[in-house]
Amino acid sequence: MIPKPYLLFLGDAHDQLAAKVARGIADWRPKDVVGQMRLAGCEADLGLADLSLAEGWAAGARTLVVGVANRGGVIADLWLDIFVEALKMGFDLASGLHNHLNDYPQLRRLAARHGVRLHDVRVPTAEYPIASGTKRSGKRCLAVGTDVSVGKMYTCLAIHRELRSRDVASTFRATGQTGILIDGAGIPLDAVIADFMAGAVEWLTPSNDPDHWDVIEGQGSLFHMSYSGVTLSLIHGGQPDALILCHDPQRASMRGTPDHPVPSLDALRQVALTMARMANAECRVAAIAVNTSAMTANEADMYVADVEARHGLPAADPVRHGAAKLVDGLLT
Amino acid sequence: MIPKPYLLFLGDAHDQLAAKVARGIADWRPKDVVGQMRLAGCEADLGLADLSLAEGWAAGARTLVVGVANRGGVIADLWLDIFVEALKMGFDLASGLHNHLNDYPQLRRLAARHGVRLHDVRVPTAEYPIASGTKRSGKRCLAVGTDVSVGKMYTCLAIHRELRSRDVASTFRATGQTGILIDGAGIPLDAVIADFMAGAVEWLTPSNDPDHWDVIEGQGSLFHMSYSGVTLSLIHGGQPDALILCHDPQRASMRGTPDHPVPSLDALRQVALTMARMANAECRVAAIAVNTSAMTANEADMYVADVEARHGLPAADPVRHGAAKLVDGLLT
Repeated sequence: MIPKPYLLFLGDAHDQLAAKVARGIADWRPKDVVGQMRLAGCEADLGLADLSLAEGWAAGARTLVVGVANRGGVIADLWLDIFVEALKMGFDLASGLHNHLNDYPQLRRLAARHGVRLHDVRVPTAEYPIASGTKRSGKRCLAVGTDVSVGKMYTCLAIHRELRSRDVASTFRATGQTGILIDGAGIPLDAVIADFMAGAVEWLTPSNDPDHWDVIEGQGSLFHMSYSGVTLSLIHGGQPDALILCHDPQRASMRGTPDHPVPSLDALRQVALTMARMANAECRVAAIAVNTSAMTANEADMYVADVEARHGLPAADPVRHGAAKLVDGLLT
Repeated sequence: MIPKPYLLFLGDAHDQLAAKVARGIADWRPKDVVGQMRLAGCEADLGLADLSLAEGWAAGARTLVVGVANRGGVIADLWLDIFVEALKMGFDLASGLHNHLNDYPQLRRLAARHGVRLHDVRVPTAEYPIASGTKRSGKRCLAVGTDVSVGKMYTCLAIHRELRSRDVASTFRATGQTGILIDGAGIPLDAVIADFMAGAVEWLTPSNDPDHWDVIEGQGSLFHMSYSGVTLSLIHGGQPDALILCHDPQRASMRGTPDHPVPSLDALRQVALTMARMANAECRVAAIAVNTSAMTANEADMYVADVEARHGLPAADPVRHGAAKLVDGLLT
């Protein structure tokens, strides 16, 4: 587990998007965050208190979280100096960077000397098994998207929160770096060896009480040429009882592969359900989560009503409307 | 390169299928094999001369090939003793196990001392990119199965050989350890990091002459809970123009996951084509390869005729009948 609370390191992020890992943590675990640390030239701002390492420590922070993407495949010397200082002060370091903290001998040595730890959340921490396909007890819900980056993690976190608020037993199951930093546990699925992907998902979502829900963070998309295999391993390893379809109506082509158009919600529904029923014949599509961030409130409400009418399923933008209707669909 | 000829180590394989790596090499490169080495309790038999290490060496073998795959890939102590002995005698070792020979310091040390090498063909040898999804020139054919281990690699090797015999430009593209040991090149797809699977397949099957065929070895099955993600990355990374469906009519349940029945050829045809057309809208199913190894010649011919009538596609058992009809379907 990663010690909380966190000080969020934004570095010299060149825009808000570069700090999206930090934003996810700030949005979903505000009580676990004491503030943000920004360097000169930082163009990201989470609206948190700007703190130095010393101020963060005084405010109770015990982990400096690198919540920003680095450029050029190296960790800048400027950043390393700050990480060194943080370790000397007693902070743990946590990072979802492609470059691993543990690949820097200087950081490893300092962490050992000061009795603190380096958490590379993109590195698998367990030996995952080959998936067995055996039916497990308990209920599982999985978010699947028409494209990548359409709001699957936010949808799952909102559903988990709504289930808890209704006193329904629920666990959020993180499968990506931001989710792991938010929750403190999970699997970095996109870094797992191919043969063990589905087994890692089975390991993450073991047998549970009959009425307990695992809310499994989705990854990729069955329709995305780069990541579809990761998505299918989630569907087959997770053996979901319910799917939540996720869609961003502003997206014309698949992110990163502009030759491929985004599929319709109907196409996603049919393909995802076909694949999910191989793992769990009882699986159903429970609800549709839409990302209406580019719409006015009125446009969003009209769009959601249209989606509900066309597909005969509850729909909502969990950021704008909350997840009540999605959970209604789940618990039907 | 791995020194030839080979002595094929079958260990204490619990059935014939467990020795399928060795069988593939023996079938497709018979001139490169001097014999088999079996331990007490071995239930596999390739019909080759049973040789000790000393006898294999005397017959000219220069590499001991670990041609047996255990579920999950574990190297038993019993096997390690033999590998030590082989290295001391001057053999190279080659293995497609998940556990790497190079992870055993004792083996590394001995190999260095005796001037021989450890070949882990399951270890990726290149830095693969993220898949781009961009359309490439040339033609590609991919084998997909109703289950794992139904004859996809044999089908592809037979199709490749038949294409060559007709002077059609063709390259066999190995994606698993047996294919790599047979061909000398390829990608160990099941050992690739999840995010890079489809990119590895794109890397393996680059743009080519318009009439050139890449015959891509299939892996797993879209219907197999453990490996379906690997299969989908092959379909989306390979962007095939043609699919060959592979089926073993003797198989009742999916290998390794007995709760899951084997799907029908119709179910495979529909799902595989749906997924493939996301990558290549022109993709079609060209032929059906069936494994009739458990049938008499008469039963096999009747079964193949029935498959052709039911599905309206050329069908054959490439081992029994050759691949002529499959290639007819491919070149139609």
